[in-house]
This record gives sequence, structure tokens and C-alpha cells, in this order.
Amino acid sequence: MGEFDFIARHFRSLAGEGAMELRNDGATMRLSAGEELVLSSDTMVEGLHFLPDDPADTIARKLLRCNLSDLAAMGSRPRHYMLNVSLPAGRHYDDGWFAQFAAGLAADQKQFNISLLGGDTTGSPSPLMLNVTILGTVRQGEALRRDGSRPGDGVWVTGNLGRAALGLQARLGRIDGVDEALVQFYRVPMPRVGLSLYGIVSAAMDISDGLVQDCGHIAEESGTAITLFEEKLPFLPSVKAHMTHHRELILLGGDDYELLLTCPVEKEAALQAHCSERDVPVTQIGEVTAGSGVKMLDRRGEPIQFSRTGWQHF
Amino acid sequence: MGEFDFIARHFRSLAGEGAMELRNDGATMRLSAGEELVLSSDTMVEGLHFLPDDPADTIARKLLRCNLSDLAAMGSRPRHYMLNVSLPAGRHYDDGWFAQFAAGLAADQKQFNISLLGGDTTGSPSPLMLNVTILGTVRQGEALRRDGSRPGDGVWVTGNLGRAALGLQARLGRIDGVDEALVQFYRVPMPRVGLSLYGIVSAAMDISDGLVQDCGHIAEESGTAITLFEEKLPFLPSVKAHMTHHRELILLGGDDYELLLTCPVEKEAALQAHCSERDVPVTQIGEVTAGSGVKMLDRRGEPIQFSRTGWQHF
Repeated sequence: MGEFDFIARHFRSLAGEGAMELRNDGATMRLSAGEELVLSSDTMVEGLHFLPDDPADTIARKLLRCNLSDLAAMGSRPRHYMLNVSLPAGRHYDDGWFAQFAAGLAADQKQFNISLLGGDTTGSPSPLMLNVTILGTVRQGEALRRDGSRPGDGVWVTGNLGRAALGLQARLGRIDGVDEALVQFYRVPMPRVGLSLYGIVSAAMDISDGLVQDCGHIAEESGTAITLFEEKLPFLPSVKAHMTHHRELILLGGDDYELLLTCPVEKEAALQAHCSERDVPVTQIGEVTAGSGVKMLDRRGEPIQFSRTGWQHF
Repeated sequence: MGEFDFIARHFRSLAGEGAMELRNDGATMRLSAGEELVLSSDTMVEGLHFLPDDPADTIARKLLRCNLSDLAAMGSRPRHYMLNVSLPAGRHYDDGWFAQFAAGLAADQKQFNISLLGGDTTGSPSPLMLNVTILGTVRQGEALRRDGSRPGDGVWVTGNLGRAALGLQARLGRIDGVDEALVQFYRVPMPRVGLSLYGIVSAAMDISDGLVQDCGHIAEESGTAITLFEEKLPFLPSVKAHMTHHRELILLGGDDYELLLTCPVEKEAALQAHCSERDVPVTQIGEVTAGSGVKMLDRRGEPIQFSRTGWQHF
């Protein structure tokens, strides 16, 4: 199987404007006047970020959605992506697998109105490795950042937390009685693209490594401290049901792909109105203060001691 | 070692405008009026594209240069790159290794006037995998393509051929008596950035998979045939010295990162003048004809039978 046939078979139909049907060394992309490009990149490694027997279409969709979530965190409209595949020989990653993988890409291309621009295919001695660099646009100077939180701002989160963390543990057979919908959410998260929060929020990022660790990034980059209130965190009943035995897992989460936002008090009404119009739940879960670091207070107001902070990449 | 400390230690000093010091989920980039973006992506896998004991700085520079060569092939000016690293634990890829790797990136950033925009770092169960997506600009509509060659055009190549193929075999200990400079060229090729061939050449690509195979891409995408003349191919004396015993290796090459061009007869003088001004040797090595496929004729005018066409990616 040659690289060129492989690309033609599985990926040519996904190619968008500027991709030159994936026939060139590269691709082109134009911006409208007043726009700038926003880029982000995420890699998924077999055994670390997905399991070899996960459905190929959900692997594809998660790969895109992690990247889409990074654009959402910066307030950017998704446009295109570059796909890099490093493919181990002699495994089950055959034409049937890649047909299903491409079908997952095609479904999410349609859902999020994006297209494939180009990429690269290589061999790999062992794990399947998948990388996407995603390209979006934003009005010049209006990309959301992590470093704008100020003491007095509220800390907010879209949607709800803990689903993916429980879903993964259920998938690994480590926790019983977990709603199958949580496993599905772990496999196919929902990036919060489509909000326009520039001028409303003071800082934004997506929650991929876990609430506390990601709050730590905003706090550190902004030079502030963050206090979270356990009782304000939004959880579905199917998640709350496991709180007694898996409290730390749920509170520290990971893979949520919700937006973590800080918002000045005078903009709270605008934030709630904007999210409400788009059917995106948004909940205040804490506050920004002077100082440094992140703490979470339990319902008695005592700081919770965690054994770890979140996902370690390596 | 956490991802964030690792990035700060080795890569923050490489970050350019729009990278937000690598502190965000992504990065931004602006284009000038009348420009469009050109993108390309290349992955290098330990054991396939480099050896674990290759010098870290040359691995870094080759990674950038393969990508720079793709931009050169499209006539694009390099601007930025995204870097993705998948890092196996418990190996020699430690802080010392990455300091040297970052020094290689820094040297080539300076040489080619580019900067790091962002990327991603993950673990890897086994091989070190390195990926760059490179971003350049070109005047709108002026990206060079592979599909424009027409019967009657000449086939041209910059520089000379076969150095990297011999250098690699010497590096692997399979051929003795090879000039050390060829090994060095294999490790650190020279992308032909800086030419402005729009309006002169009818098709362009860089030679990465080998002359014959890459001519095949131009022929196929253009719907033409290509005839190459062995006696016209440019080789250094240090390469020619091995022609008797390693003719096929040298003729099929690979990893040259020279530009393969097709040029209408009436533009030949312009091509030669443009390259001459920039001290880039350029040689006519064949012709485009009607039909399909690629053949190379020996000095008696007989087609050479090869046992393979070039590098197979997997």
C-alpha cells in the first residue's frame, strides 16, 4: 500500500478549498480582510489517548473535537485542518478501519463546517499516532486568552463536569454501573464552538487536563489566585451518583472540553444572556482573587486536599 | 517532568510573534493584504527518518528543512511553524538532548527567518516522533503547483543529486569510502527557499522520494509523460565516484530536497537568469512529452530498467 493511493482512497473526498485535492506538497488558505488566523495542534497516541479497539469513527471525531475545543477556547471560528497519520504495519489498521475513520472525519466536517487541507502519512514502528493542526479565524485582536483574569472576576464553566473522567474509568472496566452515555461522551466530546465571548470574558480556556489544573493555568498566566466552590460545580445526576466513591476523580476530571471562563461582575448578565441564546448552560463556580494558586472549598468552607492536580502529559 | 515546564525550558525562547509565549491553547498569525497562507506538514519517526543516535541538533534542522523544502516547492516565503513532539519515557531523550534539539531549531530559525508558533507534547510508548506543520505566505494565486507541465516543456533540477542517498547508506555502514560531507548533507539538507519562479516554471515540487518517483507525481498530476536523460543529471564528483557500484541508488536518490521544475522553452532564459542571480545551479535533465509515465534513457538512448521507483512511505 503506497502513501499516495492510501491518501486518495480515504482522504481525497474530505479535501476542501485550497487543498488542491491533496495532490501537492502543501495547501493554501485565504483570510478575509480584518481576520487573523488561529492555530492549535493536538496529537492522539494509541494506548495513551485512545484504545486500539475504540471505534475508528469515534477516534477520528475525538481528534477533531479536541482541536475544535482549542479554537472554541480562543473564540475562533473553525475553518480547516491538517491531518498527520503515523501508521504501524501488520496491525488491524487496514482499509476497513480507515474507511470508518474517514467516515468519522466526514461526519464532523459536516457538523462543524470544516474541511481537510493537507497533511502527511508515515509508517510507525508501533503505536498508531494521529495529529491534527486546526486552523480557524477570528477578527484581528479578538482571540480570547488565558492571561486576563483579574481579582473580583467570577469563574464560570459551560455545561457540566466529570462525564468523561467517569466514562473513561468505565471503559477501562475500573468502575461499574456507569451510564453508557458517559462512555460515549468520553469518546465523542462536544466542543463549545460558536460562542462570541470577546469583550465579555476576561480569560478563557478549555478544560482538557481537569478543572483544578486548568484553573491553575489561568491563575498563573494572569498572576491571580482562583477559589472554587465544590457545591457550585455542575454535575449530571448520572455523575453525582458516583460522588461518594469517586469524588476526587470527578472533581479533578479531565477531557471535559467545556469552557473555563473568568468574567468581570459587570459582564455577568451579558455572559448569561449570550450563552442562554445559544442553549449553552453556564454556571459560576468560583472567584478570582489576588495571590496565586487554586483551591477548592468544600461545603463547610474547608480547602479540599487532593492527591494530584490533573492529567500529566508525560 | 510536566509538559508545561518542559515547553518553558526548551521552546519558549523560540516563540515568535503570535505565539503568546506558548502560554495559550493556540496561536495567531496575520497576513498582509494580497497574501495567502501556504501550509505543509512532515513527520519524522525515530528509526524510519532518523536514528536514535543522530545528533539532536541535526534532527531538529532536518525536520525544519524538509518542511521548508515543501514551501520552497510552492514558491512560498516561510514564516512560522507548529511543533509536535511525542516523547518516549525512560530513554536518552532527556533535558540535555532537548537543549541540543532546541539549539538546532534556533540556528535554523535564524537562518531562515522563521519562528515557533505553538504545538503539542505527548508521551509515546516507543519511538520519538516529531512533526512540524510549517506556515508560509505567497501572493494570492501565485503558489507553484505540480499539475502545470505541458508537452514541450523542459525538465530542470536545482543543485545536484544523489548526495543524501549515498550519505544515508554510508551512515548505515553499508557503503565504504563515502565523503563525510555527503553524510552531513543527508543529515542537514539545504532547502531551496528564496527563489521566485511564479510565471517562469509550469510545475514544481521538491525531490524527497527520489527523482524518478517525484517526476512521476508531476507527470501524473499534469497528465503528461517525462523523459529523463541519465547523462544530463548533475552529480558531484564525490557522488559520481560511486556510480559503478551504486548506480540505481544514486539515480533514484531520495532526500535530495532539490527543486524539480518544468519550464516552457520560452522561459528557459528567465529561469537560468533568476537562478544564476541567486547562486543556485539549475540543469535541464529531461523533457515533458505527451503520454504518461516516466522513463530515464542511458547514454545510448536505451530506457533504464529499475528494480524500484523510490522511497515507499509505508
